[in-house]
Amino acid sequence: MDRRSFIKKAGLAGVGAGAATLAAPAIAQGNQTWRMVTTWPKNFPGLGVGAQRLADRITAASGGRLTIQVYSAGELVPPLQSLDAVIDGSAEMSHGAAYYWQNKSPALSFFTGVPYGMTSRELTAWVRFMGGQELWDEIYDQFGVQGFLSGDTGTQAGGWFRNELTSLESVKGLRFRTPGLGGRVWEKLGATVTNMAGGEIFQALQSGTLDAAEFVGPYNDLALGFYQVAKNYYFPSFVEPGLATELVVNKSKFQALPADLQAIVRDVCQAEYDQVASDFYANDPRALKTLVDDHGVNVRQFPDDIMEAGAKAAIEILNGLRDSDDALVKKTTESFIESLNILRTRTEGTDGAFIEARKAYFKI
Amino acid sequence: MDRRSFIKKAGLAGVGAGAATLAAPAIAQGNQTWRMVTTWPKNFPGLGVGAQRLADRITAASGGRLTIQVYSAGELVPPLQSLDAVIDGSAEMSHGAAYYWQNKSPALSFFTGVPYGMTSRELTAWVRFMGGQELWDEIYDQFGVQGFLSGDTGTQAGGWFRNELTSLESVKGLRFRTPGLGGRVWEKLGATVTNMAGGEIFQALQSGTLDAAEFVGPYNDLALGFYQVAKNYYFPSFVEPGLATELVVNKSKFQALPADLQAIVRDVCQAEYDQVASDFYANDPRALKTLVDDHGVNVRQFPDDIMEAGAKAAIEILNGLRDSDDALVKKTTESFIESLNILRTRTEGTDGAFIEARKAYFKI
Repeated sequence: MDRRSFIKKAGLAGVGAGAATLAAPAIAQGNQTWRMVTTWPKNFPGLGVGAQRLADRITAASGGRLTIQVYSAGELVPPLQSLDAVIDGSAEMSHGAAYYWQNKSPALSFFTGVPYGMTSRELTAWVRFMGGQELWDEIYDQFGVQGFLSGDTGTQAGGWFRNELTSLESVKGLRFRTPGLGGRVWEKLGATVTNMAGGEIFQALQSGTLDAAEFVGPYNDLALGFYQVAKNYYFPSFVEPGLATELVVNKSKFQALPADLQAIVRDVCQAEYDQVASDFYANDPRALKTLVDDHGVNVRQFPDDIMEAGAKAAIEILNGLRDSDDALVKKTTESFIESLNILRTRTEGTDGAFIEARKAYFKI
Repeated sequence: MDRRSFIKKAGLAGVGAGAATLAAPAIAQGNQTWRMVTTWPKNFPGLGVGAQRLADRITAASGGRLTIQVYSAGELVPPLQSLDAVIDGSAEMSHGAAYYWQNKSPALSFFTGVPYGMTSRELTAWVRFMGGQELWDEIYDQFGVQGFLSGDTGTQAGGWFRNELTSLESVKGLRFRTPGLGGRVWEKLGATVTNMAGGEIFQALQSGTLDAAEFVGPYNDLALGFYQVAKNYYFPSFVEPGLATELVVNKSKFQALPADLQAIVRDVCQAEYDQVASDFYANDPRALKTLVDDHGVNVRQFPDDIMEAGAKAAIEILNGLRDSDDALVKKTTESFIESLNILRTRTEGTDGAFIEARKAYFKI
């Protein structure tokens, strides 16, 4: 996925700064209303819906003592100014993805997802039991904010390709829309990586400006109609093995909350980490069935040599972060890699082995 | 895992019925204290610890308005009477696993885990987005209680074997301690399945009364010392691909709570579904490393013909439940199988494919 998609889709010109002065936190009879800005368009499946649901759950669990008012991308501030809005106090909360703020610290990528990195189960284990949250806190402390995991898409789709990929050779010169660290991986594989808003992809695939594009997964991609202009849908995304969302809260305001409201914010964020993932795990395969049965999409796996070259490129990128001059980036990368190497023994030896066996032997 | 283990370990003789009359719900200044009975020994890694943490989180998020007092297995009632204690009102809550109550409805197995069934991610998707919770509610409504998912161990270990397994032939006559539906699968494979308390396994393996035993996974198994008497540790458990815990609440008492406290109970249970899983995913591989590095355990994968025969046996058992004369068991089994067949397309085609690729190509 890509932040720029939302800039375009949310049509944020003019909606931003002026609105920021309209709402101020209401405090009446001990009740507070907090503003949550988000990086998602309203009702965006899985993610925008998840932001609204998270807000509603905090409001409900607090009996209205902490009422959360949601502003979709562009309603209060432009989506890419969401974190800054929390830092400067024009909003109390932001719902988005930590890797949107790589300009503040490249280490923030790890709390969303990196190429060949952690799955959704591995990420939460690292964050909650292996020091990840403490590192994240150290990064965000510099900006006076606090981050919490608030959702995960699970492993994403690899992308839509007009032509079939037969080998790594097919990637050379391929005009591929894929953003971020994933884009850097595909560049190393020989693709000509471009970026554009989600709403522009369809047209670019149709006109031949693009040969391929990656967005999220079946649940989101079905709605954008890519199947009409590219029939080959490749799996899995080895550059987005999981994509976690975050809730960021202004730290001093958070710490000023009574302990029970702090607990409610934490608990609801963690509940939503499960709820958002459940939504994607339930609705991605249903959408994929529609794509195949009703729209004739060909579901394909990437050729092995592409997956292998992707791993080599991902290793180069992660090693680069580990060699960073920024001590906190280096430390975060080291913790991530060390934890991944422990966690993967379970995921690959137990979970992966079960999934493979079920795939091979269990038909009901 | 097995309920009988806890009967033995918790030493519950005599502790039970008398204590049940000691505590009554305290209502002072709108504050209530509720009793949570559990099926776990105090401080049992992952699960007993999780029950206590869940209780503490409800107490904290409610600011003490709903204070939860935890009673470990046998402290208030014997572990296998936990659900009955909630039904008869001698406790307000029970923390355990739904498949302990198969005598009330065989369909309850599905809300814990069944052979070759759903992973932890698939289970929560079914329960929350594909009708699982509604079926569970229909089953528990008959008893005046309400169930919530409250944790998951993830895919478990397959078991400890004194001798290496070379093929399905090795299973014939093998004296194997493994309970429940998993035990029925291994019986179909030719094992002589026995059951005994967790605390008795070590002695039985040492004396040769048992050839093999299955308990939970590395995090729990390390503590019981099986590595001293059986060196072959097999993965994965194809009979326990996930094991979910539940919180059961007396329904009329739950519905009498103010809406904000009901929301808190729901939110904390869902947060704990993630927290317990994170605990296992972080600590199972660390424990396995200790077992291998410090205790010379051989980690092995089951031979293919055993996994294949296991799938055949699981299909027979699930088909048997689908043919049940009990309409609710039949309906639940049908929903489970239909949902699994949708969910697995994502797990196997996307998540599993990523895990396999990472295993093959990504070394850092």
